Amino acid sequence: MIVVKIGGGEGNRVDELTRDVAEFTAVGRQFVLVHGGSHLTNELANHLGYPPRFITSPSGMTSRYTDRRTMEIFQMAYCGAANKRLVESLQALGVNAVGLSGMDGRIWSGPRKKAIHTVEEGKTRVVRDNLTGRVERVNVELLRLLLGQGYLPVLTPPAISDESEPINVDGDRAAAATAIALGAETLVILSNVPGLLRDVQDPRSRINRIAESELKSAADQFAGGRMRIKLLAAGEALDGGVRRVVIGDSRVEHCLRRALAGEGTVIERPQTA
Amino acid sequence: MIVVKIGGGEGNRVDELTRDVAEFTAVGRQFVLVHGGSHLTNELANHLGYPPRFITSPSGMTSRYTDRRTMEIFQMAYCGAANKRLVESLQALGVNAVGLSGMDGRIWSGPRKKAIHTVEEGKTRVVRDNLTGRVERVNVELLRLLLGQGYLPVLTPPAISDESEPINVDGDRAAAATAIALGAETLVILSNVPGLLRDVQDPRSRINRIAESELKSAADQFAGGRMRIKLLAAGEALDGGVRRVVIGDSRVEHCLRRALAGEGTVIERPQTA
Repeated sequence: MIVVKIGGGEGNRVDELTRDVAEFTAVGRQFVLVHGGSHLTNELANHLGYPPRFITSPSGMTSRYTDRRTMEIFQMAYCGAANKRLVESLQALGVNAVGLSGMDGRIWSGPRKKAIHTVEEGKTRVVRDNLTGRVERVNVELLRLLLGQGYLPVLTPPAISDESEPINVDGDRAAAATAIALGAETLVILSNVPGLLRDVQDPRSRINRIAESELKSAADQFAGGRMRIKLLAAGEALDGGVRRVVIGDSRVEHCLRRALAGEGTVIERPQTA
Repeated sequence: MIVVKIGGGEGNRVDELTRDVAEFTAVGRQFVLVHGGSHLTNELANHLGYPPRFITSPSGMTSRYTDRRTMEIFQMAYCGAANKRLVESLQALGVNAVGLSGMDGRIWSGPRKKAIHTVEEGKTRVVRDNLTGRVERVNVELLRLLLGQGYLPVLTPPAISDESEPINVDGDRAAAATAIALGAETLVILSNVPGLLRDVQDPRSRINRIAESELKSAADQFAGGRMRIKLLAAGEALDGGVRRVVIGDSRVEHCLRRALAGEGTVIERPQTA
């Protein structure tokens, strides 16, 4: 079992991913896909005159401010546009994809963050109407039910809160939770960067291997923004029993095949004898 | 098994529907929901500066012109907004809803209409880039798999064409095909009208009962526009073995309970001894 997360930034080659998935499934590999939709959401929000807003935590993490109207736009972009585009592409290649949000069948559920501290112009304030949270439980029975009948689940945020509200959750960490719950051996995180770079300005400075024990120091030294969260997700996956995480490039031909061959930043658990 | 279609027009009381569904499922009734999203699609299309266009067939039927961009907007409104709103409402009532488009798992598949004759200003022309079609097959195995584990499927167009394109299909007829495939005893079609009216201007002129044998003449005499298609769907459902079709009002309290109690236009197959 392999869980593949494809980011929602610009430049993804979705058709390369789905072509690789179709080739691997034809020889019996099982996949669950998880995808983002941030770029589509930003575009749609701008078109609708409700531009995206971002909030910054005291520790410097940036996230989307997701009020009700933003959540509707988010659902249109993630569940409507991005999800069905992947499903169409897979179906056209003979893969019987089933697109689901984390709300459907409570595939991803967990607590909503009821109060978030943010920093604006140096001042801290508390935001209470933000529909964000984290995945604490994965409905692995529903995923296994589908996988067992030959369907390929294509999962997307939002998740569902314990009070049944839609919640914006981080897709990389949701993918990690899914990989853990399914006992996947590999988690592949594809996005529009080559991997973890020593120098973010130099795409050739990719770090090819990180030992699990060095993950935190590598993150502190080299990762900013989104990449910090990817490394956090990688660490969570390894802690939860996933053997290998590959952070690979979504913009290249055969993006999945390359990542599975180790092209990207590979973080592995030490083998036990 | 009861299949319920809720229309996508203005004025629906979705929370009344989901409340009734929750009450009936709590006492063991099984449902599949099918919903529309035409009003949301029109609003979104207008907001995005890509206003809806409609085409008229030589027989006078009007339908949405669905090119690629319209289909993207359609998917955002139907699969993203309308579907997840229903799923959220059901989940909040303790019903484990799973929202799926007809593309997912090829739940609804069939041929795309490759050439459509339309009439514009008295002239007939042929439209070839229209992503519309009809449901010829229902993936009843997937629906049964979900129902068997206690999930409530919430289905929405688009369907998927034999060439794996998304296709806009009529929701009422898709609901009829689903009811037939599942061997449902009842199909309920809720929308923002009280039923079939003798006089479309007079909401008190509802026809309460139509014998199956009189369906065609009633349609010819009294039905126009969307109502003609609802009666066509009703006829298809009865032909396919569904015992009872109720065309009810979606704008009232306890809309589903009332429809199941016969409030609306009821079309029944004659009972065989």
